[in-house]
Amino acid sequence: MRNEDAVEHIRNYHHNPNYLSSIEFDIKKLNLTSDINEAVVDADYIIFAVPSAFLNGELQKLTESLEGKVIFSAIKGIVPETSLIVGEHFNKTYNIPFENIGVITGPCHAEEVALERLSYLTIACGDAKKAEIVAKNLSGNYIKTKISDDIIGTEYAAMLKNIYAIAAGIAHGLGYGDNFQSVLMSNGIREMKKFIKKVHKMKRNINDSAYLGDLLVTGYSVFSRNRMFGNMIGKGYTVKSAMMEMSMVAEGYYATKSAYNLNLGYGAETPIIDAVYSILYEGKSAKYVFKKLMD
Amino acid sequence: MRNEDAVEHIRNYHHNPNYLSSIEFDIKKLNLTSDINEAVVDADYIIFAVPSAFLNGELQKLTESLEGKVIFSAIKGIVPETSLIVGEHFNKTYNIPFENIGVITGPCHAEEVALERLSYLTIACGDAKKAEIVAKNLSGNYIKTKISDDIIGTEYAAMLKNIYAIAAGIAHGLGYGDNFQSVLMSNGIREMKKFIKKVHKMKRNINDSAYLGDLLVTGYSVFSRNRMFGNMIGKGYTVKSAMMEMSMVAEGYYATKSAYNLNLGYGAETPIIDAVYSILYEGKSAKYVFKKLMD
Repeated sequence: MRNEDAVEHIRNYHHNPNYLSSIEFDIKKLNLTSDINEAVVDADYIIFAVPSAFLNGELQKLTESLEGKVIFSAIKGIVPETSLIVGEHFNKTYNIPFENIGVITGPCHAEEVALERLSYLTIACGDAKKAEIVAKNLSGNYIKTKISDDIIGTEYAAMLKNIYAIAAGIAHGLGYGDNFQSVLMSNGIREMKKFIKKVHKMKRNINDSAYLGDLLVTGYSVFSRNRMFGNMIGKGYTVKSAMMEMSMVAEGYYATKSAYNLNLGYGAETPIIDAVYSILYEGKSAKYVFKKLMD
Repeated sequence: MRNEDAVEHIRNYHHNPNYLSSIEFDIKKLNLTSDINEAVVDADYIIFAVPSAFLNGELQKLTESLEGKVIFSAIKGIVPETSLIVGEHFNKTYNIPFENIGVITGPCHAEEVALERLSYLTIACGDAKKAEIVAKNLSGNYIKTKISDDIIGTEYAAMLKNIYAIAAGIAHGLGYGDNFQSVLMSNGIREMKKFIKKVHKMKRNINDSAYLGDLLVTGYSVFSRNRMFGNMIGKGYTVKSAMMEMSMVAEGYYATKSAYNLNLGYGAETPIIDAVYSILYEGKSAKYVFKKLMD
């Protein structure tokens, strides 16, 4: 963990002071540390679950080598310093080969896992055996796992869904209803398919739960920070005041810029991403942009 | 309208006594009648919007010919007497050729249309020109229309979605959360695709709003009668008591039986439809069936 106080708190009181605090940990099963080198040195498999905005800063402290280690990411989003998804960041910055990189993806609200409600995870890795090892270790009574070889596609889906969740929030804030929301989501999944196909062409069913399911659980959730952020924009907040009000940045804000810029090279048809970009980064009126989008 | 009292009420008070009563009609634009023959005789285009359970009974009163007329259906479901979707019912029972049959489909809650919230309709007809005529006449400020040539597929989608809405309700009633719901919906759309492909193979994008959008607006709506019916089953009501409690039958109840029986011939892989069927018609325990479905 990045915060030594939180480590101490969990050691003493057996629960996290900041997130899902009602959950009690069996600390005999935990090896807690706030020192990334201590966590890394003895591990063969490492799962990173740091918010993407803090990942690069944390990795700067690393003096131990990552060579030969298997790196899984449960992080959804873009590393701001390199504008790369997490898997690509490890590949380009640390020379980790893709067969040693994996992604853990939903649809999976942490709140529901804490409540032990049945959830499905997709474990993607270039090397199916490593995906199976992680899948086996994470599955249990209320967690079912599937494996996939599409590490690029699943990670882009997890990133792009946050943009569509912002769009859903904007639409809600502007007063559009459930009829429109369902059209937005069906257009969103078709747009996501086109985008991901440009990034990494392979045989995939975009309606698998790691893509469509992940989009739906975020786009329809009133608890999604991205949807909430969009909702405020739709209601007339400026980007700056919406961010201040939320006191944390929605991942989709960065994702929008990265996806938009990436797509200048790819040229996929992405009217929803373009609309969100023009609202968040070009100061266009949400009402006007959505009216145009609809036509 | 089937009810002369309702006709009189609208003539006198300008609103429907039974549905969305707050909406005021401009009666100068309405030619109201409770006599199906009067409605049919002078019309070139006829849109049927009678609940499917009452359609056949109403058509029995018909003495005027339907020959040469263009028949559109805004009805979602199966005609119980013939176990056919509405388009097929008109084709088989009245010899209407498919180029004179059309379907009007959502995603479209009537409540939101009444509130003038932006909604999209898909108008499907074997003859694109006729679809365009209806699309043009129905579109306006808050109704946008698309046309399609997939009358069979859109109508089956509109029927099958109600089964998945029942499944979503059962899951909710059993205590499953949003993570599972999103997996159920992504499995549902893949299952729907396989089923419709068996019924009528053609090039269609199952993620178009007439299929996926329609599924989502129903599956995620707490107002859906089908979802509510499923919810009661999940909470432990018997089918009979859930029906009595709701004082009307959810369309998906009949759809489940028809789809299940049809699929005995088609042989598509439809674990969700099979699960709902075994709960509603074979008295299996919802808890047990869903536990098996999940694995």
